[in-house]
Amino acid sequence: MKKLSIILFSGDFDRAVAAFTLATGAAAVNYQVNLFFTFWGLNVIKKKKGRSFTGKGVMARFFGFLSGGFKNLPMSRLNFLGASPKIMISLMKKRNVATLNDLLSAAIELKINLYACEMSIHILGLTKEDFIPEVKEVLGVPKFLELSDGGETLFI
Amino acid sequence: MKKLSIILFSGDFDRAVAAFTLATGAAAVNYQVNLFFTFWGLNVIKKKKGRSFTGKGVMARFFGFLSGGFKNLPMSRLNFLGASPKIMISLMKKRNVATLNDLLSAAIELKINLYACEMSIHILGLTKEDFIPEVKEVLGVPKFLELSDGGETLFI
Amino acid sequence: MKKLSIILFSGDFDRAVAAFTLATGAAAVNYQVNLFFTFWGLNVIKKKKGRSFTGKGVMARFFGFLSGGFKNLPMSRLNFLGASPKIMISLMKKRNVATLNDLLSAAIELKINLYACEMSIHILGLTKEDFIPEVKEVLGVPKFLELSDGGETLFI
Repeated sequence: MKKLSIILFSGDFDRAVAAFTLATGAAAVNYQVNLFFTFWGLNVIKKKKGRSFTGKGVMARFFGFLSGGFKNLPMSRLNFLGASPKIMISLMKKRNVATLNDLLSAAIELKINLYACEMSIHILGLTKEDFIPEVKEVLGVPKFLELSDGGETLFI
Repeated sequence: MKKLSIILFSGDFDRAVAAFTLATGAAAVNYQVNLFFTFWGLNVIKKKKGRSFTGKGVMARFFGFLSGGFKNLPMSRLNFLGASPKIMISLMKKRNVATLNDLLSAAIELKINLYACEMSIHILGLTKEDFIPEVKEVLGVPKFLELSDGGETLFI
Repeated sequence: MKKLSIILFSGDFDRAVAAFTLATGAAAVNYQVNLFFTFWGLNVIKKKKGRSFTGKGVMARFFGFLSGGFKNLPMSRLNFLGASPKIMISLMKKRNVATLNDLLSAAIELKINLYACEMSIHILGLTKEDFIPEVKEVLGVPKFLELSDGGETLFI
């Protein structure tokens, strides 16, 4: 079975769309797909209404964990010519292209493996409970290398 | 034959230079090279004088399709210490390093395969005609995976 | 022996941490690891007190070679909600996670191969002497492809 593994480091809306498009496209043609969320990318799999981070100001502000949902992800070019996730979402809907929410649902249906980075979570003082239940495991680099071995791996 | 495939997602000048430097360097030592342009990366292969996007304001502004040419690509650190493509181009010329225009010409001469991402183009309501004629094909993820299979793949 | 090769293009603090975390994690489980520094990534391996670039204004400003040390690397989201390397370093220390300085030392102890990109160095008019002595070699794309062949390669 062919394998595609993606490390989603970025929390940018457009890069997340690219990661999920690659992931679901690969799963659709029977690839085993591993999505490993780290740093800003963790925003994509956090619970929409997570526990409150009031009183842990720095951490909360740092990873933007106070607000949830894809519409709050910024673009990689937020200030470039007025591009915004809102515009992109509206273009995607207009063209009947799956939006990021659809893509996450599709990823889950296609049994794509969702993993969260142990170290990032540790730095932030979070636990597996802060993320959507579909996250299979919290793991570190050695385990990820084992899982991705022998396939294509992308860092996004 | 060894293979290098690059997904150019970024429209940043410096990242495009890196992608083309890797691509042409690989082709020079007889790698089969596939360059797959998606999202902002599409700017690199658009026709310099494409069709007018007046009246399709959002899309046009969104991907900056109104202006063409490499000199209009921003840097990934546009506002960082005054770095600009202009400065970088002048440094590259001073050192006799191939500029991005040279690199694209070299890529074409070296028979590097240029592909455009079907989904991005669909979202933007564009067609193959909006890109330079050297673009071999407009294709989706499954086809790209087939082409890149068994080689190294980078996401830039 | 399994192999992981990383092209560190970015000079962002958080991306550098990600690159070194992957690199040292892989080396710890006996991977051969190649780190190839290019463009902004060169900042990570420059000597802290390098030669002065006064009088070569453009170059100096361009790559920020005047100041050294990891604390001067920006975040990929510098202006996003007040995130800063300082906050991240303090979080990392609080959680007993290796900081970037520790990670570089670990990389050297683990005999990770550090390479610098020939072309970037040439553009900037620098030499091997401007970088920490642990940099093994200055090399170009063909040599890097040879070294990374048969393993996983990431572009960060």
